[in-house]
Amino acid sequence: MSPGTFHICGTVSIETRGAGFYALGPELQRFLTRRNAGSGLLSVFCTHTSASLCVQENADPDVLTDLSAALRGLAPEGGPYRHRSEGPDDMPAHIKTMLTAVQISLPVRGGRLALGTWQEVYLIEHRAAPYRRRLELDFIGTA
Amino acid sequence: MSPGTFHICGTVSIETRGAGFYALGPELQRFLTRRNAGSGLLSVFCTHTSASLCVQENADPDVLTDLSAALRGLAPEGGPYRHRSEGPDDMPAHIKTMLTAVQISLPVRGGRLALGTWQEVYLIEHRAAPYRRRLELDFIGTA
Amino acid sequence: MSPGTFHICGTVSIETRGAGFYALGPELQRFLTRRNAGSGLLSVFCTHTSASLCVQENADPDVLTDLSAALRGLAPEGGPYRHRSEGPDDMPAHIKTMLTAVQISLPVRGGRLALGTWQEVYLIEHRAAPYRRRLELDFIGTA
Repeated sequence: MSPGTFHICGTVSIETRGAGFYALGPELQRFLTRRNAGSGLLSVFCTHTSASLCVQENADPDVLTDLSAALRGLAPEGGPYRHRSEGPDDMPAHIKTMLTAVQISLPVRGGRLALGTWQEVYLIEHRAAPYRRRLELDFIGTA
Repeated sequence: MSPGTFHICGTVSIETRGAGFYALGPELQRFLTRRNAGSGLLSVFCTHTSASLCVQENADPDVLTDLSAALRGLAPEGGPYRHRSEGPDDMPAHIKTMLTAVQISLPVRGGRLALGTWQEVYLIEHRAAPYRRRLELDFIGTA
Repeated sequence: MSPGTFHICGTVSIETRGAGFYALGPELQRFLTRRNAGSGLLSVFCTHTSASLCVQENADPDVLTDLSAALRGLAPEGGPYRHRSEGPDDMPAHIKTMLTAVQISLPVRGGRLALGTWQEVYLIEHRAAPYRRRLELDFIGTA
């Protein structure tokens, strides 16, 4: 049995510049290193309803382009939405958020994010305008 | 480094009255307060395969109406399903569950759920009939 | 308040034999039993971007067949994808991964996975070829 676990939390903000995928790995790794996280889980929680999270391929940027197109196909602008007061891209953004993830817990080993070889963690911005997106981070584990 | 973490668990049941979104925030907050949770993560796990979870907008109810319609579009009743023995809304309910979330970990700060300003946690009931839905709760963190 | 929590981690590999659902419950239960996990949360993280996770019905296999068909409908082979270098089933596999789950935390009670009566945890293989899929496991809780 390992020694007892501790909890550390913090916040990071991501400035988005339009719809698309924003890699979070380097920022999350800085948090882990600065706070002496060793082995455990890092939870990332997106505090918004028109931006979300996913873990996806880090190699061919065409994958991210195709993922954006797939989301547009599943939640098209110009659909028969009742909620229209915040612009034509707002209701599609809520649907895309529902279909992806608002929170993910990532394994941490020896102070490093232990993702797969081809994986990166992304914030997906679903709105066209620039936003400041706030993520709540929680590490629970050992030193 | 914070003091060691503890774990508390419990169950809440939600009585649903047809398909739609049921806000969980007040019930989850009661659990945290009653059990003296301070700072950490609250995991919510839905023990069913035709109801699920999401974090979504708490302001304009039209958003929830549009989300329901989007799910109906992605998993229509009357599709060419093999599984039909439990009624026409059952297989669409399984698909909607797969496309949303069965489990979410929520940040807790100072004894309060630390969601974004416009966020609420919802149980999404996908069946038309009333059901009693059981959620497993786990808080891991500090006092 | 319960005694302090501990963290244990490990890896399991699943050999897939084509697209479909692979039950993980027995393998996860072996991990919990071997490592003397008592009560807490077991996180399962899929280290791939063309395979993913879900919790779904364990009774009628037609449900899984219909879920596979639903995913094919939402992310068809032969779509207008830019990413084609890894075969016609690769980009659909990335989309299916985005729409389902890369990580789920499961409640554990008295050393047992505490799923609902009709629930099983599945790895969803989205590729046609056989693969060796690696899952990172983290238990945080008490003995």
